Amino acid sequence: MKKLINDPAHYVDEMLDGLCAAHPSLMRDGPAGRVIRRTEGARTGKVGIVTGGGSGHLPLFTGYVGPGLVDACSIGNVFEGPTVDSCIAAIKAADGGCGVLRLYGNYGGDRMNFDMAGEFLEDEGLELSTVLGTDDIASAAPEERSKRRGVAGIVYAYKIAGARADEGASLAEVTAAAAKAVERTRTIGCALSSCQIPGAAEPSFRIAQGDMEMGIGIHGEPGIWRDTLKPADAVADEMLDRLLAERPEGSGHRVSVLVNSLGATPLEELFILYRRLAERLDKAGLTVVQPLVGPYVTSMEMAGVSLSLCFLDDELERLLAAPASCPFWKIG
Amino acid sequence: MKKLINDPAHYVDEMLDGLCAAHPSLMRDGPAGRVIRRTEGARTGKVGIVTGGGSGHLPLFTGYVGPGLVDACSIGNVFEGPTVDSCIAAIKAADGGCGVLRLYGNYGGDRMNFDMAGEFLEDEGLELSTVLGTDDIASAAPEERSKRRGVAGIVYAYKIAGARADEGASLAEVTAAAAKAVERTRTIGCALSSCQIPGAAEPSFRIAQGDMEMGIGIHGEPGIWRDTLKPADAVADEMLDRLLAERPEGSGHRVSVLVNSLGATPLEELFILYRRLAERLDKAGLTVVQPLVGPYVTSMEMAGVSLSLCFLDDELERLLAAPASCPFWKIG
Repeated sequence: MKKLINDPAHYVDEMLDGLCAAHPSLMRDGPAGRVIRRTEGARTGKVGIVTGGGSGHLPLFTGYVGPGLVDACSIGNVFEGPTVDSCIAAIKAADGGCGVLRLYGNYGGDRMNFDMAGEFLEDEGLELSTVLGTDDIASAAPEERSKRRGVAGIVYAYKIAGARADEGASLAEVTAAAAKAVERTRTIGCALSSCQIPGAAEPSFRIAQGDMEMGIGIHGEPGIWRDTLKPADAVADEMLDRLLAERPEGSGHRVSVLVNSLGATPLEELFILYRRLAERLDKAGLTVVQPLVGPYVTSMEMAGVSLSLCFLDDELERLLAAPASCPFWKIG
Repeated sequence: MKKLINDPAHYVDEMLDGLCAAHPSLMRDGPAGRVIRRTEGARTGKVGIVTGGGSGHLPLFTGYVGPGLVDACSIGNVFEGPTVDSCIAAIKAADGGCGVLRLYGNYGGDRMNFDMAGEFLEDEGLELSTVLGTDDIASAAPEERSKRRGVAGIVYAYKIAGARADEGASLAEVTAAAAKAVERTRTIGCALSSCQIPGAAEPSFRIAQGDMEMGIGIHGEPGIWRDTLKPADAVADEMLDRLLAERPEGSGHRVSVLVNSLGATPLEELFILYRRLAERLDKAGLTVVQPLVGPYVTSMEMAGVSLSLCFLDDELERLLAAPASCPFWKIG
């Protein structure tokens, strides 16, 4: 694993400096500059949305700060959660006087720190709510959905909650929209190769030459099986079959599809997979709305993909199509 | 090199099918479907812009078809030029009755086929012009700029020519704008690892563990030196110094910067490089306008980056900022 970096100890701060230099709509704030927020500040009278997590997943998390999406983000070291102090500062930065939704992936460290930050701020009178991304179907059984990890599907929750907040909805309404987006989104990932934390002596894990791993997490958490690399169509079929087996009750026939690169897998391969997925979804009687194909949530140089389905209803479809803009995603 | 593909013989066609399925603003056309054009067709009364080249560089070339950019694209197999017939069909697809600019990178095969296509169509009465991308400073000496290859900097020419055409300019004016964009753009690339053509038994080239190559082309053409991997700041400095040494005569103090991933290199590393470049450019008295940081022109899973500078004047700056939209780049 070769990286174009300087001292690994400065990796995150140099990356955040470059991100904000290239995108002046974002700025660093908070303790040690580990909050990324909208430069123009929180919008008074709008429900705030805050997220957070470890570095190494760009465009996630910091890249989704922008109008119609997230207002502020607390960011940790590579694959490590943000500190309590950063969470407090991020929540404050997102506060426009109508309460703040904490919307982030279901990881123990992140949950603990966002909870502690919340207790502190609720004592100060701030109104808060929480929705956790739990879209990774490989990480726990369907009966234990609340134990699942949050992975790429969280971008649907950002988009949908962000649009609802922009409509002037209340904290309860924005929270309900985010919860519905999570409830109706399913993701599975597969990796062909590992990534390496800057400064680490070894890759985070290893996948033998010629092998792949189905169901892996975005930090290399173990998956469902590891075996010989299959053709793209077979991989697409297995991922789709596993997601369709968990179609939410009462869902209609309209879905959005996210074919996401985990990093090194190029767009060409994403489109080869998407072609098969579109054919299969059509045969299954599902209509694809607003497909997303590209690197939305990565693990640095990891090769592999994830597939997410967001099962839409009229409200989710309207919110997904609403205008939004961040450095990596512009709609409308 | 592991790939999520099916039969390598179907790689390009499956990729194009997926691209158009995900982005209905694009459609396949021409012999064997190797033309990608705007689904809504050429705009009558607007100068057409056509490009083309080999596959394996997404978003280049097909991904830049859209309003304010390119009207049609002929596409070949991986790293192979498009056929004459595809070039003819692409030029026709771009024709809105006001002539067509052929705007593509300076490679022998592409030039031969676009020239033959042009002779055929000029006999039919179509008015054509040509501008070749020649931005890669590592590929020939400054005295022989016309012999240089076209690499990532061509996206500036697309954007600038596309905006000029949208303003209702004549073929001569659009051609002049594209030529000025090429004349004022300089690029250098460096690779950390190779890529592999689908179906090939071996990677296109090899770079030893711990090494990098400065000045490499987007198909792995040999560079200036190959040595131990340097820190990001040292790489940024060398690339920038080489580009600034070729600052076009009479250029002002405003530049656009493109920090481009060749594929596997993640956004985090691009921003670490950009941070250094922004500091250095500021010290050099140059003002950065509209920086571009991301994967704009790739070589599949190649790890590495390229750096482009486009030295602006008032006209180029206006055209670069004009509205444009394609699946991978939205401005305004």
